[in-house]
Amino acid sequence: MEITKTPDLPSSICLYFFPGTRAARAMWMLEELNLPYELSLVDLHQGAHKHDEYLAIHPLGKVPALKIGDIILFESLAICLYLADNYPKSALAPEIATPDRAEYYKWMAFSTGTLEPAIIEQSRRRKALETGTDYIDMGPVLTPFENTMAYINNILASRPFLVGKNFTAADIMIGSLLRWADSMALLSDFGHTKNWLEQLKQRPAYQRIREH
Amino acid sequence: MEITKTPDLPSSICLYFFPGTRAARAMWMLEELNLPYELSLVDLHQGAHKHDEYLAIHPLGKVPALKIGDIILFESLAICLYLADNYPKSALAPEIATPDRAEYYKWMAFSTGTLEPAIIEQSRRRKALETGTDYIDMGPVLTPFENTMAYINNILASRPFLVGKNFTAADIMIGSLLRWADSMALLSDFGHTKNWLEQLKQRPAYQRIREH
Repeated sequence: MEITKTPDLPSSICLYFFPGTRAARAMWMLEELNLPYELSLVDLHQGAHKHDEYLAIHPLGKVPALKIGDIILFESLAICLYLADNYPKSALAPEIATPDRAEYYKWMAFSTGTLEPAIIEQSRRRKALETGTDYIDMGPVLTPFENTMAYINNILASRPFLVGKNFTAADIMIGSLLRWADSMALLSDFGHTKNWLEQLKQRPAYQRIREH
Repeated sequence: MEITKTPDLPSSICLYFFPGTRAARAMWMLEELNLPYELSLVDLHQGAHKHDEYLAIHPLGKVPALKIGDIILFESLAICLYLADNYPKSALAPEIATPDRAEYYKWMAFSTGTLEPAIIEQSRRRKALETGTDYIDMGPVLTPFENTMAYINNILASRPFLVGKNFTAADIMIGSLLRWADSMALLSDFGHTKNWLEQLKQRPAYQRIREH
């Protein structure tokens, strides 16, 4: 299936963000696309996310949110999916109805649906151990962190990027989460993943967002 | 942007499933598309998900998984995204690069990235209260259940479906989660959502999967 028309550049793009949040994923995506955009700091420490002005952008008062032309979009995964499709020349998403597109959707969904909950759970488990608190296990509803990491690491043993030969938005979504897991020293047993993460960190777009 | 080619029907579709799991979403999707498919029961009670035969399909031993022609796909969100794009005549996904597509991606991402964790957290909080266990709160990383529901309910006050006038795969993803929340009696304060859910339950495709 061919993409027959590249949409016009929107008149403006604004990213609502705060450092150390999921907004870094959206920023990385914009930098990979080399798009001009404004940054609007939503100062969570000052409670700016609870003001009516921001709640008109994101009714749940979270970051990131993206204003692109007349469209206001939130959920970092949705921002990455939408931008990748809208700038097909960048090839950050495989074409619709190809086997690579299936693989791409799998990783995009895996990032927020399986990996992120697994990292959060691992962090909660660690806090429970540290504080001697009883731990309420959610059973098979959540996939254990070790299993998700073993799966990713095994894939990255045989491919340079998650979908295959080419860097895609899936590397941004999973890479952002694993950068977080790495900052909590959770990746030491997963060498292929560490190597892949180091490669991602060399990318010019990553260099431009690394402070965030 | 026009979709220029409808892919050929794959030679066969097989859904690996077990009742009472996220596999119901994929089944609902297949029924909405009126696709012929086989069901392969992965008996979790018998440990079938841990056998090598199934691990070759889904390395993490979870359901659902979908075999569609030569493609093996997992993550219920990815299955719904991929199927919706592959059968564009069904109009279960808005066209690429339209404002509705942005809204669709937002709800698809919201389902697994925000709503599902909020429901799981609400369930965990309830268990903590019931058992008198201390509760490890994850702070702003997770959006509270009441907030996610107030947002959804407010949207459904003014639209028949999540994306707008038309039923899409977003109603399947969010509907499946809220059917689960409803079974835990969590929706009594959210009348518009209850009404929308009742409408979804009248759909022929839902009628065919309601046991699962």
